Amino acid sequence: MQEKKQIGKIYVIGIGPGEEKQMTKGAESALEESDVIVGYTVYVDLLKDRFGDKKMLTTPMKREVERCRLAFEEAQKGFTVSMVCSGDSGVYGMAGLMYEVGRDYPAVELKIIPGITAASAGAAVLGAPLMHDFAVISLSDLLTPWEKIERRIEAAAMADFVICIYNPSSRKRADYLMKACDIALKYKSPETVCGYVKNIGRDGECSEITTLAELRNKKVDMFTTVYIGNEQTMEISRKMVTPRGYRNV
Amino acid sequence: MQEKKQIGKIYVIGIGPGEEKQMTKGAESALEESDVIVGYTVYVDLLKDRFGDKKMLTTPMKREVERCRLAFEEAQKGFTVSMVCSGDSGVYGMAGLMYEVGRDYPAVELKIIPGITAASAGAAVLGAPLMHDFAVISLSDLLTPWEKIERRIEAAAMADFVICIYNPSSRKRADYLMKACDIALKYKSPETVCGYVKNIGRDGECSEITTLAELRNKKVDMFTTVYIGNEQTMEISRKMVTPRGYRNV
Repeated sequence: MQEKKQIGKIYVIGIGPGEEKQMTKGAESALEESDVIVGYTVYVDLLKDRFGDKKMLTTPMKREVERCRLAFEEAQKGFTVSMVCSGDSGVYGMAGLMYEVGRDYPAVELKIIPGITAASAGAAVLGAPLMHDFAVISLSDLLTPWEKIERRIEAAAMADFVICIYNPSSRKRADYLMKACDIALKYKSPETVCGYVKNIGRDGECSEITTLAELRNKKVDMFTTVYIGNEQTMEISRKMVTPRGYRNV
Repeated sequence: MQEKKQIGKIYVIGIGPGEEKQMTKGAESALEESDVIVGYTVYVDLLKDRFGDKKMLTTPMKREVERCRLAFEEAQKGFTVSMVCSGDSGVYGMAGLMYEVGRDYPAVELKIIPGITAASAGAAVLGAPLMHDFAVISLSDLLTPWEKIERRIEAAAMADFVICIYNPSSRKRADYLMKACDIALKYKSPETVCGYVKNIGRDGECSEITTLAELRNKKVDMFTTVYIGNEQTMEISRKMVTPRGYRNV
């Protein structure tokens, strides 16, 4: 039996939400070890100062499959490659697509290096909204039927999950957050404590704590992460706090 | 008007799942800056080698309120304090309770430093199970009525979320994972791809990919994180992979 020959290695790295200090030490050493860094233009630019000696390859948005192939082609040449994603590479990142595309490159080894996802980073800005069971839902209907997204918001609201929303808006989907709030309002009180954070860990970071009724009318962009509390979520000293359970402190 | 005087400062830090390399640089600098480190005995022990010069204060499990008060008392003396949690301090961690207890210590500043939560770290071990909408549910009924937990599993399964389960078992709740799987099986195929990881980032880390029907009969412990796939989750080269959407690569 012939042994499968390992040719190259790819780290699929979550670099966190933007600030260098939110990157793990494991992500940093994987980047240091790499010959080539591949990623979406914006994220690779964030690394140019510190890893400028590496070969950098980028593709724009919506060219993700091509980006994966770029990484595998470099690894096939024997290089160690980092595929970088913002946040966690395993949460709406490139990890899954890399395994899918990787079926064509069986000799390349993949290693996933997790990062701080927006749900965690934004929660830390707002206070402690995710202390209890929560659902993470993207409102992007680019690759998911909107009916399925609606069904998930409905189920999460019905069962009193804290809901964390990624991609709440874009030019083509300006009213999606309003639609999502209207579904949540079928089950959750209009006074439910909610919050959102824009540009987590980047220039222009800002956040607000509000109610579900008010969140419905907020204009947010695609760089915003939104949190809808559960029935116990409260505001303490201008922070959004979900208790860890149903007994009092 | 008299200005509120800030006395001390507490970092509420997620140190990640165990391995030093999964700690963020921000968590490390906060620990370095601190005079006192407070936490659950097991996690503080992990830090003794590197931060042995700090004052260390610990309380055992189920003494969380007391642990919070210890931290605030030290901060009131003017010290900079780190309250450490495994994983992310904001996900089933101490962040929420710290804000609750902090109502009695209004002059102490709290800053939450997020970490890699088990959902992210375990996902990276298994492959890429969390590439699409997911629900995080703890099976611990210590502070949550079991009926509420059941309702959340049911809603998440019905709406085809990937489900990530924390605290799937303990001595007193040996059959809770079985119960959770039985609820999921009402909506998800017995062939649904599932996985679990024990001791993420620690000695004895191990993982397995299985089906929902088989997961039902697995014996897992409280240091295990469990993943139930959505209807598109698949196994690729012995990894658990959820595609990012509903279009083919």
